[in-house]
Amino acid sequence: MEFLVRTVNLLPADTDPSERDRLRKGERARADELRAAGMLKRLWRVPGRNATVQLYEAADATELHAALASLPMFPWMEITVEPLATHPQEQ
Amino acid sequence: MEFLVRTVNLLPADTDPSERDRLRKGERARADELRAAGMLKRLWRVPGRNATVQLYEAADATELHAALASLPMFPWMEITVEPLATHPQEQ
Amino acid sequence: MEFLVRTVNLLPADTDPSERDRLRKGERARADELRAAGMLKRLWRVPGRNATVQLYEAADATELHAALASLPMFPWMEITVEPLATHPQEQ
Amino acid sequence: MEFLVRTVNLLPADTDPSERDRLRKGERARADELRAAGMLKRLWRVPGRNATVQLYEAADATELHAALASLPMFPWMEITVEPLATHPQEQ
Amino acid sequence: MEFLVRTVNLLPADTDPSERDRLRKGERARADELRAAGMLKRLWRVPGRNATVQLYEAADATELHAALASLPMFPWMEITVEPLATHPQEQ
Amino acid sequence: MEFLVRTVNLLPADTDPSERDRLRKGERARADELRAAGMLKRLWRVPGRNATVQLYEAADATELHAALASLPMFPWMEITVEPLATHPQEQ
Amino acid sequence: MEFLVRTVNLLPADTDPSERDRLRKGERARADELRAAGMLKRLWRVPGRNATVQLYEAADATELHAALASLPMFPWMEITVEPLATHPQEQ
Amino acid sequence: MEFLVRTVNLLPADTDPSERDRLRKGERARADELRAAGMLKRLWRVPGRNATVQLYEAADATELHAALASLPMFPWMEITVEPLATHPQEQ
Amino acid sequence: MEFLVRTVNLLPADTDPSERDRLRKGERARADELRAAGMLKRLWRVPGRNATVQLYEAADATELHAALASLPMFPWMEITVEPLATHPQEQ
Amino acid sequence: MEFLVRTVNLLPADTDPSERDRLRKGERARADELRAAGMLKRLWRVPGRNATVQLYEAADATELHAALASLPMFPWMEITVEPLATHPQEQ
Repeated sequence: MEFLVRTVNLLPADTDPSERDRLRKGERARADELRAAGMLKRLWRVPGRNATVQLYEAADATELHAALASLPMFPWMEITVEPLATHPQEQ
Repeated sequence: MEFLVRTVNLLPADTDPSERDRLRKGERARADELRAAGMLKRLWRVPGRNATVQLYEAADATELHAALASLPMFPWMEITVEPLATHPQEQ
Repeated sequence: MEFLVRTVNLLPADTDPSERDRLRKGERARADELRAAGMLKRLWRVPGRNATVQLYEAADATELHAALASLPMFPWMEITVEPLATHPQEQ
Repeated sequence: MEFLVRTVNLLPADTDPSERDRLRKGERARADELRAAGMLKRLWRVPGRNATVQLYEAADATELHAALASLPMFPWMEITVEPLATHPQEQ
Repeated sequence: MEFLVRTVNLLPADTDPSERDRLRKGERARADELRAAGMLKRLWRVPGRNATVQLYEAADATELHAALASLPMFPWMEITVEPLATHPQEQ
Repeated sequence: MEFLVRTVNLLPADTDPSERDRLRKGERARADELRAAGMLKRLWRVPGRNATVQLYEAADATELHAALASLPMFPWMEITVEPLATHPQEQ
Repeated sequence: MEFLVRTVNLLPADTDPSERDRLRKGERARADELRAAGMLKRLWRVPGRNATVQLYEAADATELHAALASLPMFPWMEITVEPLATHPQEQ
Repeated sequence: MEFLVRTVNLLPADTDPSERDRLRKGERARADELRAAGMLKRLWRVPGRNATVQLYEAADATELHAALASLPMFPWMEITVEPLATHPQEQ
Repeated sequence: MEFLVRTVNLLPADTDPSERDRLRKGERARADELRAAGMLKRLWRVPGRNATVQLYEAADATELHAALASLPMFPWMEITVEPLATHPQEQ
Repeated sequence: MEFLVRTVNLLPADTDPSERDRLRKGERARADELRAAGMLKRLWRVPGRNATVQLYEAADATELHAALASLPMFPWMEITVEPLATHPQEQ
């Protein structure tokens, strides 16, 4: 099942640069794992914002939550999840 | 997977009573089938409104949409769907 | 450039079935053309609603508008368009 | 009477881990008591968020408030309460 | 248990005056009964609007819904219900 | 003239307990005075929140503001005020 | 006491011109009476809209409602009323 | 002074094509006059919608309202007006 | 040209009292100057809030912004500005 | 392609004046470069707010994001981006 996921990164602007860098690298590494596992299918940036739109594939909302919560930036992320149904034109 | 479903019934107030009655009976009959199939797990009325809160179990959003669209009142229903994840306290 | 497009179909519930059918077939035929042209990349149904989420590729907002306005259901569609930027992780 | 309760946990991301752990354990212990008392009937996680949806049974809003305020995380919780009426189909 | 109830009357402006009059008289008569039964405790007009704020006493949301749905204007009313808890200062 | 007043208490969760206690006692004492003066007619708790709904009687908005601003918690309160008109059924 | 009043005129665009004209003339005549009575103190147009901002003086919300409801366009008006308190700088 | 103006065209989808055509031509002709007068400085389409964003120059809100109300489509337009101040970087 | 201005004062509740006092006095002195200059025509308090509604007269939005930004509290003020057009009834 | 960009500057009111000054100068210098490059076409101040409306020209949302993120104030800016399509009247 596919989910449309939106994230806004609320990490404070005055966060220590090395800590921010460490989080960003960890975020990317974990995202690469989720991509390799076929869960993170697409990732876009919202222009002008520290925010993203993502397309996820997961068995259900529980598996999706586990994936999102495994990202190092999760405690600072404001995330919304929207379930997507298959459209007849794509069946 | 469970979904929280909210419905608002927008059937016009001046609908012919016999047509309204026919729709209501069909709605109930189809809801009973979904209940028997284990998909419609709970159903509440929002006090003061022609609206409901429902708890559904479905394989995914596609199966859920098919169930909702099979209800006779569907063309007049404003529906929102929220995916629910299992909470660790219930595992 | 990619765009996230959301549509809500406001065609009245009491539209003549044959007219509705004619519009739906025309909608699908035109969508197939946009798909073949590489503009309509993905199409999902919003569960419980006569609404969709779509992923479009277009040169700019002007080309995108022309594509959306070419669909037979356009006069009854409420559409919102969100521009998407490439994320560094996908570059 | 049943109530649909939504919670968002606003405990700051930089809270001391041991304090956070202490609060979480207390939260779970108190929730288990409310569950045993028949008040907390269901508990779901909102995917992607430190938030929940809950189904409560209480005599009235005053008893419900007392239950919610007895949870150790209450001072950091943003809570909304929605009253639910029995639907004729479940009577 | 007390509930704060808000109503907006959406009866069309071009409703036949005698029908409107009939509904208003029925509305008042039924409200008087609910008042006599101790359910409708206060009733205010929202200035400038065909809308009210009401204070109800009911055993639960189910009894409240039955009372509201028994009013002749109910099909044209947009109603919201808010549960109220006793405040310690009034105990 | 009556006013419906809603308050949300934004006093930080980490406020010193003795200071919080002092404010609460002062709040109650001042509320009792306003009650004795016939201004604070009813007071409810919003279940699940550090928030209230209140019914005030005041000559006008200026007198009401003076009453609200005289409460010790006022600097931490988010307050909204709604004017109420007498309904013909209560005249 | 002063009130800030906002109106939006929802008279349908296809109303018969002579009926519209009759309503407009009646509206102006009644507004002139309220102005002469010292109740309607200022009247502005919201640019681009069939809407106004108004400053009223009335004993209370009940008197204000009676004034607003006496205007011929009232059944088509969406009105919001905000109570204003005297500011210390104007005392 | 410059204003940012947003319009949404609410002309019903089932309007007679010849009437729609007449209105569109009149709209364009009047817009050309406002452009020639230096009032309508820019005009964009909101992609996917029968809506525009416009940049106007007018002496004040009264002159702007007169210009907008002179457009043949005005009775079906939902318009919002935002005042713009000169930015120091452009002085 | 007239503008309706709304302000919310976000100065933190724990600001040093002498600093707050200094700002308030400066605010009043500057407001008196704007009043004397014919720019600040009316000033109301929003009951229950540290907020105001104001009526300004200014040549345009640029002059208005300069006036608002000259007030000592400006850095802590959340301000919204609405342009007002002359209504035919006041011409 | 043109974009309408709105910014709100959330730099804390108590930021060190010299740091604020350094950021402002850097902001202006970078904006001048974007202006010279033909990307920043117009810039307005929202009256009463530390906010702007901007008109940008960019190849796509990715180039626009790079431009916006290159401004020194970017970490404190809340930015929204709206895509604009060419209107037939301007073609």
